[in-house]
Amino acid sequence: MKQAQGKDVTKYRWADIPEEELNPLLTRKLITGDRVMLSELVLKKGCVVPAHHHENEQVSYVIRGTLKFEVNGREIILRAGDVLHIPSNVVHSATALEDTLDIDIFSPPRQDWLDGTDQYLRGK
Amino acid sequence: MKQAQGKDVTKYRWADIPEEELNPLLTRKLITGDRVMLSELVLKKGCVVPAHHHENEQVSYVIRGTLKFEVNGREIILRAGDVLHIPSNVVHSATALEDTLDIDIFSPPRQDWLDGTDQYLRGK
Repeated sequence: MKQAQGKDVTKYRWADIPEEELNPLLTRKLITGDRVMLSELVLKKGCVVPAHHHENEQVSYVIRGTLKFEVNGREIILRAGDVLHIPSNVVHSATALEDTLDIDIFSPPRQDWLDGTDQYLRGK
Repeated sequence: MKQAQGKDVTKYRWADIPEEELNPLLTRKLITGDRVMLSELVLKKGCVVPAHHHENEQVSYVIRGTLKFEVNGREIILRAGDVLHIPSNVVHSATALEDTLDIDIFSPPRQDWLDGTDQYLRGK
């Protein structure tokens, strides 16, 4: 098996990562690897992420607060310690029922989140 | 873009996932997707994960406690809120300096963790 001893590991602290305000109810921080992206999302109560879909596989992990997902007409409530696996291309929306801290994991990384073509999240 | 409305999303609660005891100092829970795997690792103080490497990209996210990684002779201390990105095939080891709760994310999922061929983690 190949060993890549020269490759760099990188340590991050969420507290040190610049925060991007997408709209008054939603801020985001990103850690981007080769195959995987982590995002720390802070959603204020009432924040709505409109229905959308993407090829990237998604895992959402609620650290605190309450997040309601809608998938195929089904409501799924996530509270602290709950995890939702969303396969590739499944349409989903989300509403923060409380102030919420959520970690979203994507594979591959979300190119639209890196290049800012994520208009569905952005305030006018 | 293809929409896979029929595909199932799955909700998990860490508290409901069976815990696997790998050795007296290390237990593990798994959530496995198509391209990504999440693992909740509980490491008691003094737990040592010996040096190893794998093709899977790894991101380690310490929720509480303190974890010391060694990579290429370099010591990296992770505390609550710290994240380490370990590229594919980089040799690494880890020691729990305190009782630690860590989320490890892999892409692709760790086949050796699914089929139990992870002897480097298991007590004799």
